[in-house]
Amino acid sequence: MTITSVNPVDGTVVGTVPETSPDELRAVLAAASAAVGVGDTADRVRWMTAVADALDARAADLIPLADQESGLGHPRLTSELGRTTGQLRFLAGYAASGQPFEPTIDTADPGWTPTPRSDLRSIKVGIGVALVFAASNFPFAFSVAGGDTASAWAAGCPVVVKAHPGHALLSEAVGQAVRDALTAAGAPEGFFALVHGFEAGVAALAADEVAVGAFTGSVAGGTALHAIAAGRERPIPFFAEMGSVNPVVVTERAARERAESIAEGLAGSFLLGAGQFCTKPGLVIVPADSDLPERLTALVTDRPAPVLLHHGIRDRHATGIMGLLGRSGVELAGTGQEPPAGDGAHARITVASTTAATLLADVEGVTEEHFGPSTVFVTYSSAAELRAVLAAVPGSLTGTVHRGADEDIAEVVALLARRAGRVVVDEWPTGVAVTWAQFHGGPHPATTDARFTSVGAGAITRFLRPVAYQNTPADALPIWLRDANPDGIVRRVDGVLTTAAVN
Amino acid sequence: MTITSVNPVDGTVVGTVPETSPDELRAVLAAASAAVGVGDTADRVRWMTAVADALDARAADLIPLADQESGLGHPRLTSELGRTTGQLRFLAGYAASGQPFEPTIDTADPGWTPTPRSDLRSIKVGIGVALVFAASNFPFAFSVAGGDTASAWAAGCPVVVKAHPGHALLSEAVGQAVRDALTAAGAPEGFFALVHGFEAGVAALAADEVAVGAFTGSVAGGTALHAIAAGRERPIPFFAEMGSVNPVVVTERAARERAESIAEGLAGSFLLGAGQFCTKPGLVIVPADSDLPERLTALVTDRPAPVLLHHGIRDRHATGIMGLLGRSGVELAGTGQEPPAGDGAHARITVASTTAATLLADVEGVTEEHFGPSTVFVTYSSAAELRAVLAAVPGSLTGTVHRGADEDIAEVVALLARRAGRVVVDEWPTGVAVTWAQFHGGPHPATTDARFTSVGAGAITRFLRPVAYQNTPADALPIWLRDANPDGIVRRVDGVLTTAAVN
Repeated sequence: MTITSVNPVDGTVVGTVPETSPDELRAVLAAASAAVGVGDTADRVRWMTAVADALDARAADLIPLADQESGLGHPRLTSELGRTTGQLRFLAGYAASGQPFEPTIDTADPGWTPTPRSDLRSIKVGIGVALVFAASNFPFAFSVAGGDTASAWAAGCPVVVKAHPGHALLSEAVGQAVRDALTAAGAPEGFFALVHGFEAGVAALAADEVAVGAFTGSVAGGTALHAIAAGRERPIPFFAEMGSVNPVVVTERAARERAESIAEGLAGSFLLGAGQFCTKPGLVIVPADSDLPERLTALVTDRPAPVLLHHGIRDRHATGIMGLLGRSGVELAGTGQEPPAGDGAHARITVASTTAATLLADVEGVTEEHFGPSTVFVTYSSAAELRAVLAAVPGSLTGTVHRGADEDIAEVVALLARRAGRVVVDEWPTGVAVTWAQFHGGPHPATTDARFTSVGAGAITRFLRPVAYQNTPADALPIWLRDANPDGIVRRVDGVLTTAAVN
Repeated sequence: MTITSVNPVDGTVVGTVPETSPDELRAVLAAASAAVGVGDTADRVRWMTAVADALDARAADLIPLADQESGLGHPRLTSELGRTTGQLRFLAGYAASGQPFEPTIDTADPGWTPTPRSDLRSIKVGIGVALVFAASNFPFAFSVAGGDTASAWAAGCPVVVKAHPGHALLSEAVGQAVRDALTAAGAPEGFFALVHGFEAGVAALAADEVAVGAFTGSVAGGTALHAIAAGRERPIPFFAEMGSVNPVVVTERAARERAESIAEGLAGSFLLGAGQFCTKPGLVIVPADSDLPERLTALVTDRPAPVLLHHGIRDRHATGIMGLLGRSGVELAGTGQEPPAGDGAHARITVASTTAATLLADVEGVTEEHFGPSTVFVTYSSAAELRAVLAAVPGSLTGTVHRGADEDIAEVVALLARRAGRVVVDEWPTGVAVTWAQFHGGPHPATTDARFTSVGAGAITRFLRPVAYQNTPADALPIWLRDANPDGIVRRVDGVLTTAAVN
C-alpha cells in the first residue's frame, strides 16, 4: 500500500510513499519503548536544538516541497518553519529551566498535623512513548517536528509521529532531517520515528508500548481516536484539538466607530491560510443595524478563489457551505471570484449571514465549523440576544470582542471565557504566539480535554506524570530533587517557591 | 427505592436513606450549574474553612455513626476526620496563595520571533460542575467532604457528591453539616449537593451540566464510569483511582540485617484498616532464602479476624484469596484466627507465598489486588529475577524498597518509579500525608490517568482549565492578572516567577 501525494494547485501527482507495515511498526514501537528514560533534560535540550538547526539549514529544500504538497506559498511556509524551529528552541529552553517538571520538596516534619510527615519530594517525568497524529494545515508547525512532538520531547518522551498523508513527501524529508540530526547528536534510535498510513496509526494507538497520544484535526477524526485511546484495556490520555468556530463579537459602539478597519481585519483573519486555521473567525456576531456584512462582501468580491490543502477539504467545504445556505434563515451575503477551471482544489470565498434568532433556533446547523474561506455573520438586536448567543455557541479555541474606545466589555469577556480557551480583545484570533501564557485549547468540541493546550509552555504538561519519593537517599533521587541546587532551579520547598538549596 | 445501611460488625440494620429521584437530580444539577463562577477564591477559602470547622464541631456525633456503618473504630475515625478537616484547610490555604491557578503574564513584545507578540495573560479557573464518587474505605477522607470535594472546591468547582451506600447515614449527616456551614457562610445553594443511588450517579455522569468526574474505588467500577465519561457526546475528564498491589522489595542485605523489624512494620502496614487501604502492600518481594514469610506468619497467627467495611468486600476478599491459593505455585504461608460466629463481615488474615518464576508465568493471576487483610510474598533468587518482577508488576500507587544500612538502591528506586506514582524507602506505603509534594496516583490500573493525583496540593489541577486573555483591558481581566499585585501572588512574568507588579 502506498500513499499518493497530490499538488492541490493542479491535481498532479508529486510522488508516493509506502505505508508502514505491521512488522515495521513493531520495530518502531520496540525502539521507542527502549528509549524511554534514556538521557536527561540537558541531553534532550541538545537533541532538540540540533533538530531545530537542521530544519533551518534545510529550509531551501523543505519549503518548495511543502508548497508543492500544500499550496500554502513560500512566504507563509517560511514563516511557519521559523515558528516551528523557534518552538523547538523555546520548549527546550523551558525544559532546561526545570519549571515544567515542578520539583517539589517537603522536608520531614514531626509536628505536621494530623500525623508526622516524612521527607517527601516529587518531580514530573515523561509519561512514556508519545504518539503524535500530524495535521494537514500546518505542514511544519503541527506536523512531524511540530508543537506536539516538541512538547513531548521536552517532557522526555520518545515520539512516534503518524504522518499526515496530505504532505507525505515533506513528512519524509523532515523525518530524515530529524533522524540525521538526532543520530549526530547522540540520541537513542527510538527517540523519534515516523509512520505512514491509517492502519499503522490506529494499530500504534492500540499498542501497549504507547502511553499518550496527541492529535490535531477534525472532530470526527479526533473523536474516533479518542474513543480508541479511552477504550483500550489500559486507557491512555489522548488530547485531540478538533473543531472551533471562534466567535467574534462586535459591540454597537465598535461597529459605529470603526467598521471599515474591523471589516479589513476580519477579511485578513478569516482568509489567512485560505481559512484553514483552527482559529479562523467563523461566527461574527454584529449589531443588527451594522453594515459590516456589506463592507466585508465588498472587500472580498474581487478576490480570486484560493487553493485549499487538498481536494477532500475543498469538497467538504463546498458541501458544508451548501448545507449552511440551505438552512432556513441563513442567507448568502457575498462571494469572491469563481474558482478557475482545471483540476486544482480551489474554493470560492463565501460570506453568509443570519440572525441571532435563527442561530438560537438551529444551534447545530448554524454553528457547524466550515474549514476554508468562509465566515458567517450573526446579527443581534439586544444585549439579551447577544448573551443568549454567547451561551449557545460551541466550545471554541478563541473568543474575540471588538469594542469602542475605552468601552467596558468586562461582561462580554467573562461570557467568552466560559466558552473559549483564549479571549482576544480588539485583535484577531489567527496567529498563535508560542509563549508562556499561550493557551491553545478550549471546551469540547474545540478539544477533548479543556485542561490542556497544544501551543505554548503548558503544552509540555500533556506528556508528564509526577513521581514522589518518600524518605529516599540523595543518591537514588533525581538530580533536581537533591538538597543542593547547583542549577538554580526554582523548586517548591515546604510550600514556598525558591532557588535556594535545602539545608 | 431506598438504601439500607448495615453495621458490618453484626449485620444489623443501622437505617435507610432514600435514593435520589430523577426530578431531584435535575434540580441538583441546575443549582450546581448556576453556581459555576459564583464567588472568588477568597469566598471559597471562607466557605471551605467553615465546612472544616463545622465537621470538627460535630465530631462527637459523626464518629460514632461512622463506626456503626464502617466498623473502623473510634481512634482511626478520629484521626481520619482530623485529616479530612486538615485537608480542607490545607487546600483552601493553597488556593489562597494563588499558586494552583498559575497566573502567567507575557507582556507585549514587538521583537518576539518569529512574529511580534501581543500582551497575553493566562490563569486557571474551575472547569465547571464536578461529580465526585465517594469511596467506602475512608468514610471521611475520601467521601462527602473528602479530598476530591475539597480539591474541586479549591479549584472553584461546585460539587455534586454521589454518596457511597456503605455509609449512607454518615453521608447524610456530613452532607447536612456541609450544607448548614455553607449556607451560614453565604455560599450559593448549588456549591454542594449530595445524591444517593447507582442510577443517580450514572445519570449525573452523563448529564450535560457535569464537566469533570472523580472516583475512588474498584477497577471494575472505575473502568465502567471512565467509559461513560469518555463516551459522552461531549467527553469529560474522569479521574478514577482504582486498584494497586503496591510492591515492596526487601533487599538481601535488609533481610539479613533487620528481618524482625521489617516483619513487624509489614504486619502493621498490610493490616492497617483491616487491609482496606489502596496503598496496602499486597506483593512483598523478598530474597528466596529469607525467613520473612515465617516471621510475618508468626506475628499474625494469633490475631483475631478483623471486621471489613461490608459483607460484599468480605465475600470478594474470600473468593479472591481462594482463587489465588488455587493457582499453581502459590502456597498458603499462614493465617490469623478464624472469624467469629455470627453475621459480622469478618475476614481471616491470610499470608500467601510464591516465587518470582511463578509470578512471571502467571502475572495476572498472582498480581491481582485483594482488598482486605492479606498479602503475598514473592521470592527472588537473583538480581535479574528481581528486575523481571519489577518490570511485570502492574502500575501501582506506591512502590517500596527496604534496604541495608547505606546500601545503594538507586536501580531499584528507578525501576519502581517506572511502575508507581510514589516510591518509599525504608518506610511503609500506608499513610498518605497531605502536603505539596504528595502524589497519590500512578500508571493504570492504579488510576485511569497517571498524570493526576487525588491527594496533596496537585489534586486541585484535575479540576482546573486555563483561560488566556490577549490584549485585554485591566478592568476586564481577573484580579490576579492585572499589573498591580497587591496580594503578592507568585506569577510567571515573561517567563520568570516573581511577586513583583508589572510595570
